[in-house]
Amino acid sequence: MKNIITFGEIMLRLNPESYKRFVQADKFEASYSGGEANVAVSLNQFGMNAAFVTKLPSHEIGQSALNQLRRFGVDTSYIVRGGERLGLYFVEKGASQRASKVIYDRADSAIAKAKPEEFDWNTILKGANWFHWTGITPALGANMEIAVMDAVKTAQKLGVKVSCDLNFRKKLWSSEKANKVMSELMPYVDLCIANEEDSFDVFGIKAESTDINKGELSREAYISVAKQLCERFGFKKAAITLRGSISANDNNWSGLLFEKGEAVFAPNYLVHIVDRVGGGDSFGAGLIYSQLNGWDNQKSINFAVAASCLKHSIEQDFNLLSVDEVETLAKGNASGRVQR
Amino acid sequence: MKNIITFGEIMLRLNPESYKRFVQADKFEASYSGGEANVAVSLNQFGMNAAFVTKLPSHEIGQSALNQLRRFGVDTSYIVRGGERLGLYFVEKGASQRASKVIYDRADSAIAKAKPEEFDWNTILKGANWFHWTGITPALGANMEIAVMDAVKTAQKLGVKVSCDLNFRKKLWSSEKANKVMSELMPYVDLCIANEEDSFDVFGIKAESTDINKGELSREAYISVAKQLCERFGFKKAAITLRGSISANDNNWSGLLFEKGEAVFAPNYLVHIVDRVGGGDSFGAGLIYSQLNGWDNQKSINFAVAASCLKHSIEQDFNLLSVDEVETLAKGNASGRVQR
Amino acid sequence: MKNIITFGEIMLRLNPESYKRFVQADKFEASYSGGEANVAVSLNQFGMNAAFVTKLPSHEIGQSALNQLRRFGVDTSYIVRGGERLGLYFVEKGASQRASKVIYDRADSAIAKAKPEEFDWNTILKGANWFHWTGITPALGANMEIAVMDAVKTAQKLGVKVSCDLNFRKKLWSSEKANKVMSELMPYVDLCIANEEDSFDVFGIKAESTDINKGELSREAYISVAKQLCERFGFKKAAITLRGSISANDNNWSGLLFEKGEAVFAPNYLVHIVDRVGGGDSFGAGLIYSQLNGWDNQKSINFAVAASCLKHSIEQDFNLLSVDEVETLAKGNASGRVQR
Amino acid sequence: MKNIITFGEIMLRLNPESYKRFVQADKFEASYSGGEANVAVSLNQFGMNAAFVTKLPSHEIGQSALNQLRRFGVDTSYIVRGGERLGLYFVEKGASQRASKVIYDRADSAIAKAKPEEFDWNTILKGANWFHWTGITPALGANMEIAVMDAVKTAQKLGVKVSCDLNFRKKLWSSEKANKVMSELMPYVDLCIANEEDSFDVFGIKAESTDINKGELSREAYISVAKQLCERFGFKKAAITLRGSISANDNNWSGLLFEKGEAVFAPNYLVHIVDRVGGGDSFGAGLIYSQLNGWDNQKSINFAVAASCLKHSIEQDFNLLSVDEVETLAKGNASGRVQR
Amino acid sequence: MKNIITFGEIMLRLNPESYKRFVQADKFEASYSGGEANVAVSLNQFGMNAAFVTKLPSHEIGQSALNQLRRFGVDTSYIVRGGERLGLYFVEKGASQRASKVIYDRADSAIAKAKPEEFDWNTILKGANWFHWTGITPALGANMEIAVMDAVKTAQKLGVKVSCDLNFRKKLWSSEKANKVMSELMPYVDLCIANEEDSFDVFGIKAESTDINKGELSREAYISVAKQLCERFGFKKAAITLRGSISANDNNWSGLLFEKGEAVFAPNYLVHIVDRVGGGDSFGAGLIYSQLNGWDNQKSINFAVAASCLKHSIEQDFNLLSVDEVETLAKGNASGRVQR
Amino acid sequence: MKNIITFGEIMLRLNPESYKRFVQADKFEASYSGGEANVAVSLNQFGMNAAFVTKLPSHEIGQSALNQLRRFGVDTSYIVRGGERLGLYFVEKGASQRASKVIYDRADSAIAKAKPEEFDWNTILKGANWFHWTGITPALGANMEIAVMDAVKTAQKLGVKVSCDLNFRKKLWSSEKANKVMSELMPYVDLCIANEEDSFDVFGIKAESTDINKGELSREAYISVAKQLCERFGFKKAAITLRGSISANDNNWSGLLFEKGEAVFAPNYLVHIVDRVGGGDSFGAGLIYSQLNGWDNQKSINFAVAASCLKHSIEQDFNLLSVDEVETLAKGNASGRVQR
Repeated sequence: MKNIITFGEIMLRLNPESYKRFVQADKFEASYSGGEANVAVSLNQFGMNAAFVTKLPSHEIGQSALNQLRRFGVDTSYIVRGGERLGLYFVEKGASQRASKVIYDRADSAIAKAKPEEFDWNTILKGANWFHWTGITPALGANMEIAVMDAVKTAQKLGVKVSCDLNFRKKLWSSEKANKVMSELMPYVDLCIANEEDSFDVFGIKAESTDINKGELSREAYISVAKQLCERFGFKKAAITLRGSISANDNNWSGLLFEKGEAVFAPNYLVHIVDRVGGGDSFGAGLIYSQLNGWDNQKSINFAVAASCLKHSIEQDFNLLSVDEVETLAKGNASGRVQR
Repeated sequence: MKNIITFGEIMLRLNPESYKRFVQADKFEASYSGGEANVAVSLNQFGMNAAFVTKLPSHEIGQSALNQLRRFGVDTSYIVRGGERLGLYFVEKGASQRASKVIYDRADSAIAKAKPEEFDWNTILKGANWFHWTGITPALGANMEIAVMDAVKTAQKLGVKVSCDLNFRKKLWSSEKANKVMSELMPYVDLCIANEEDSFDVFGIKAESTDINKGELSREAYISVAKQLCERFGFKKAAITLRGSISANDNNWSGLLFEKGEAVFAPNYLVHIVDRVGGGDSFGAGLIYSQLNGWDNQKSINFAVAASCLKHSIEQDFNLLSVDEVETLAKGNASGRVQR
Repeated sequence: MKNIITFGEIMLRLNPESYKRFVQADKFEASYSGGEANVAVSLNQFGMNAAFVTKLPSHEIGQSALNQLRRFGVDTSYIVRGGERLGLYFVEKGASQRASKVIYDRADSAIAKAKPEEFDWNTILKGANWFHWTGITPALGANMEIAVMDAVKTAQKLGVKVSCDLNFRKKLWSSEKANKVMSELMPYVDLCIANEEDSFDVFGIKAESTDINKGELSREAYISVAKQLCERFGFKKAAITLRGSISANDNNWSGLLFEKGEAVFAPNYLVHIVDRVGGGDSFGAGLIYSQLNGWDNQKSINFAVAASCLKHSIEQDFNLLSVDEVETLAKGNASGRVQR
Repeated sequence: MKNIITFGEIMLRLNPESYKRFVQADKFEASYSGGEANVAVSLNQFGMNAAFVTKLPSHEIGQSALNQLRRFGVDTSYIVRGGERLGLYFVEKGASQRASKVIYDRADSAIAKAKPEEFDWNTILKGANWFHWTGITPALGANMEIAVMDAVKTAQKLGVKVSCDLNFRKKLWSSEKANKVMSELMPYVDLCIANEEDSFDVFGIKAESTDINKGELSREAYISVAKQLCERFGFKKAAITLRGSISANDNNWSGLLFEKGEAVFAPNYLVHIVDRVGGGDSFGAGLIYSQLNGWDNQKSINFAVAASCLKHSIEQDFNLLSVDEVETLAKGNASGRVQR
Repeated sequence: MKNIITFGEIMLRLNPESYKRFVQADKFEASYSGGEANVAVSLNQFGMNAAFVTKLPSHEIGQSALNQLRRFGVDTSYIVRGGERLGLYFVEKGASQRASKVIYDRADSAIAKAKPEEFDWNTILKGANWFHWTGITPALGANMEIAVMDAVKTAQKLGVKVSCDLNFRKKLWSSEKANKVMSELMPYVDLCIANEEDSFDVFGIKAESTDINKGELSREAYISVAKQLCERFGFKKAAITLRGSISANDNNWSGLLFEKGEAVFAPNYLVHIVDRVGGGDSFGAGLIYSQLNGWDNQKSINFAVAASCLKHSIEQDFNLLSVDEVETLAKGNASGRVQR
Repeated sequence: MKNIITFGEIMLRLNPESYKRFVQADKFEASYSGGEANVAVSLNQFGMNAAFVTKLPSHEIGQSALNQLRRFGVDTSYIVRGGERLGLYFVEKGASQRASKVIYDRADSAIAKAKPEEFDWNTILKGANWFHWTGITPALGANMEIAVMDAVKTAQKLGVKVSCDLNFRKKLWSSEKANKVMSELMPYVDLCIANEEDSFDVFGIKAESTDINKGELSREAYISVAKQLCERFGFKKAAITLRGSISANDNNWSGLLFEKGEAVFAPNYLVHIVDRVGGGDSFGAGLIYSQLNGWDNQKSINFAVAASCLKHSIEQDFNLLSVDEVETLAKGNASGRVQR
């Protein structure tokens, strides 16, 4: 009964409480997060059956990561155990004009050092409907480049649909390296998820007159990015998220889905942010859910953007929302009135 | 020296910290709350002497509820002790487009199962100036229907003014049942407090062109609701709260007071919400305070709306505000500048 | 290598968590704060070397204050130890229309009762570039009046630049007393920092048509205040902060710097407040930093206002920001986008 | 690959932090617990595959209970969803001579009101090796009496071993009722777990000269209880826990296992208590683990007592211990030295 | 229906969480405490009606103190409002060989500066059965010396029994001063409560071979102290608490009651300490309760020592225990077994 | 005025609150700790001037480590900034028979990867009286082996006394490697600090009949270890700590100091543990303090053992104790009575 497989790194996330800065913290909230793990969690809250594939150290911190995945229904049976350390990152929450900050400490994690052959993709992907990964996974190192290539080739062979979120991380690799590696992987991708920054940083694809700190991209510019992506790599569909950052507390949020030359846009939401990390992942999960339900593009993008809009109101990276909650917003009720 | 008697249920309120969802919580903040108890607490902060009448289990959780009432000056000498359980409810705080959620677990509470004869209204109401209850109390069950009827009849007999907040709870009873029971109780009510939803759910009274999720009722529509209420039941006055829900964080808030065909409106406030539960109760308390001071309708509604506006900035359900604080806002100072 | 000396009181600050009111608190967050100490801390975060001069009791609460200063790099070697108590204050955070509240309990603190001769200004100021104090210090009592006079005279003698933030505290002294004492100290001041309220409360200097609860001072009015200050006391420069209080959550924030009849204004920022206490001090620190760097007036005021704008996003009174962070905003990036 | 099935109620556990009393609490730690659920969790930490069977409301509080079970590896696929409420209990931790206190609020929970036919025992028990329940389950009401009878008969039919912990709860039923119901169920039990109090309260079986508040039962007395239990009901084995309560902080703890007239005792441990609730359940889990491993009686009781000894050092009810950790103690290393 | 009046100071108590030292604290738990207030609280938990008399500032911190008294049932109607500050103290909890530490900051509190005539003892004591004060109250200053003298004279006149706990505080006054003032007040005291240190520090009364750091006073020595107290001042009864301090965690605790040449001792308890502050006050409350019930001396001292033994297991200074809980221990059940 | 230099690694320490296990934690307390840093902090609390030398990343987590050192008075002016990561470790607190657990994640820290030439020992050690390091530092890798050799040779050259705590970490290197490296460094050591385990693990030096889990080493055995150490490496003095682990909560604790064939022992303390990590470091600090004061061996060992005994009562790794507090215990007052 397995539906979706996601593959990547899950890290320990450590953040000071409320709006405290790192240098003020004598406590960190501890949770576990990673782009592909977040997608798996969100899909399970939507009632799907998603498994997350990674390698985790056998010590208790690795176990805690696995336990949190299980807690939210993720199938953890393909997780390999071993290695030395769990990657981690520190995040402090911004407010007003002060930006949120992320400090990564993820080098040499168990998954980054895992060997490609530790993952038996024929077994893992057998019977699955969908495979999802992000640009972070091959950026973890040469082994993971191979592992992702193995995975997407196997997916293609088995007829499993593949989605990829570009998710460029400049601390992990250069644009040049990313371009080279990702360009080889893209032919195996059916649905590409990106924003205009990642499109540029990874592939040099550029929308005109963009200033990402003002959030004033024109609709045409976004469509142009999606179009270029599809044309260059032959994706069936490309989805672009549209974030307009007014301040660390308030963002505009929307998205588009592009297919065969046509783009549909979701409504724009003005979101008052509780925790913005994981926003992109929740969009991916919403989109995969929509696709697996066979919805049309407009309904799909509306659901995905509503899901990720609501994610911004949830602490930490997992998007703990039901389909009902997302649909309430997608159908137009954004009032936030108390539900008794 | 007793002035006001309120009657109803007080519950244990359990909420996750900050914006955590229920499924993320490993701690609940514990407080105690109920519509009529909240009114009593608020009135005591205003310097009045208000007693709250209920039945509480004799165990320590019941005692804790009683202790919190005492802490904020409520006269607890008429509280009956006994029964099995304290009702409770869970609440998670919404943010942005995500609504707050309430899960009730209040069936078979001590007060819901109390017998009418456990409350000696002649003793309780003797010497009181005001009796307040809400539609929640008779909704608790047949015994409470009788108890409220006993109370309001005794109040009438003793010349004690009666106010009622309609407060419809669809989890407790149907609109049909509410209509039947409340219609019999309304003749004993001097001041009716409602919003346009409750007016419709309980009595089918409807203002034209209302969409409560948009908060775009016209002034005329609200006046029409108040007018219908007064005409049908002969209230001396009716007060309507006006909530416009922009999001879970931001609401518009106002109210009107209607008497003898004339409505006066308070200014509208845009409130940035800390905790919105108990907002209606704080309005009731403000209005009762105003009436007992013999203020005119404009001053009364201004005070009541200012009090409840400020309640939205206070954690948990009790409205812990002084008369001075309310009057500062009612007189027009909404700047929130630091008071040193 | 010492650059800056600041002189005044540091207190224990006790505040309920989040938005809890005093009467709800069963815990207080404990930090240490004072106008001049805050300036020293901020300057050290900017990479300067600032010492803070005060007197602290030798017990562990006094030690904790000293430790927090050391933690953030402040030179504490001139702090005198002894006396009975550390002054303290309670603060509860306002929200929406509800104002923040401060209750002081600072009488008879070690510094207020210190003798002027406990501070050897020739030693302390030798080799320093700047001396900063606020109107709070002489308001602590007759001994501190003398101590400040000693300090500023010594500064003048040693060629150390002097800045003063008027910082009127009506709980400490009357306007009459403040006027008399401050007027004698002003001749030794090079840079005066004020807002329009303090200018009026201390010196009766008034800008036309001001309503501080509305934040609608015209630019001309602010310039007029600065001009009057400079003319009356011969300051080389005067800086005025411009706060427009929309609510306890949202403020407009800007400032001007006035020199030789010319005023330059910083851009206005709409700030969503995390903690507004210490906002003025962070402005002072930004300005001193700018002056010591020899920047022109426009760059100076832009930096000072950007620094204090960002302070509003930081918990407690210390402004824990780097020069880079301030300059990012001063250069126009106010988007608050996540920094990875 | 399923090994063990346990059946019963899981509740929300609410306890004040540290040693606070109920009347001091303004926060409760929230966890989820129940005798049979605790056994399933412990067995999963030992590497077994245990499923827990119950009925849980579909709301988020019910979901949170399920999530916590999943988090620790419990198979939740047989859990029925529906009903109104999750039972709950409050516990405050005792210290020194002050006893811990439990207040139950579990009436009318989803599982107590579930219908016997909601549990398809043929499916659930098919392929299982062991079925475990406690005396709490039939005490929940007539429906659960039937459900347990159905389960144990099915287990017998399918050749699944059955263990029962007597676990008498006087708030749920009387000794007379318990005696009647449990006596009918005992013939289906292979391994009976009890202490001397429960043996007396349920079956009137009494060891001579017992004073449970002193913990001074002789070994012979305990053996006599086990012997009587086996003789009356034909258990293959009976295990008795031996608790000597010195204070709320310090207990002696041991146990015996009785088979065919022979009793073996584990060493006695003096335990310094962190949280004593769930101690009996961890003993049951240890014993079931031993039995499924085919260990001899001495090794079995040693493991079970070591496991439950260590449980007393763990917060909340779940016994989160690995086999290695238990065996380290069982082999004699009780020094508690830091493991680096 | 008023029974007991106590008179003195209540302070804000600030303590770091758990075993943190002052210099580690960035949070303080806030509670309210004072010798005589603690006695009033304890008596109300025993079901008596006790009022506490003091003066409290009208600001919110003063209000919070009053609220906590009300919360636990204390009659606050005789509390005078006004003055500048609430006294406060810091306490860090010791462990093992490290002692707990108290730092007082109580000078110039509202009660210390109150005028004797603010307390109308004829009204306050009318109808009361008992008046309790401790040596701390007159130590607050000349005004309080007079106020206590007024109170005890009025008590004598009205036939109200008087108890006094010597409670010497060396930070407030010298032994010489204490001796002089207390000696004048003692003739009005019926029941004197002391330990051997206070007896020596206040009156120079000495038991042979005492080393208070070892807790090895002989019974005879303690009797000798009680005897000398009664002989010198003509008390009807004297009670002595016996503390043997093994470490900051573990103490021996007992007491004796002396009347007409005869001493009765309570059993000794070995207590494992949660919070030891307020231990003496809980003894006083237990004794007053016993006396008002007319119990014989043995029963009285047993109850008082059991009550104060249990206090050591409760966080903060208030002794939140019921009569039932105390009697369970007084009757010999010290096992601390869970009460379900 | 610099006295002592210590050199090594400081890590971020993450521990669950109270007795929670890793798998239960959703928060970690964050502090900063390392063997040599702990010694520097303790010496500064004793009023000495100690500097700690290390390399820290320039990001905010590195800065936080530096800030905590400054907070407690450590001279941080020789700390090199740069590198990628701060080492970290997780610790969960044991209780009763359950051992505390440490999980290290320290590979590739900034200090481990620092180059020897980044530390200019001639400058650092110039004017110092003492240099302290532990066996952890050279275990960090080849660069640190060289750096320590540089340091001790420079110390010898400059006449700076050198102490070394063997501190074997099996996760960092093998006994063989440790033996080789440490044997080369020992000739430069004046005072060697060890326990019997480390002596064996590093040098194979063995005391007869040791079972470290029982803590039953005879005095002669310990003396024999010290004697062998001094004989093999020519230390002037050797100090051995004696830990007898009764349980994770209770330990016996003592030590000996050996010089010229003579051993003196401190009294044994039974310690009730709050946090045992850092116990050995506090012993080292006490001993260095004693030596720098020129105390005789008996007074020295008494002070060192009293200091480290008290450390066990303090949360986290820093030993925040004054000389007065240590001397109170060293002089025999172990009663833990409240200090007011």
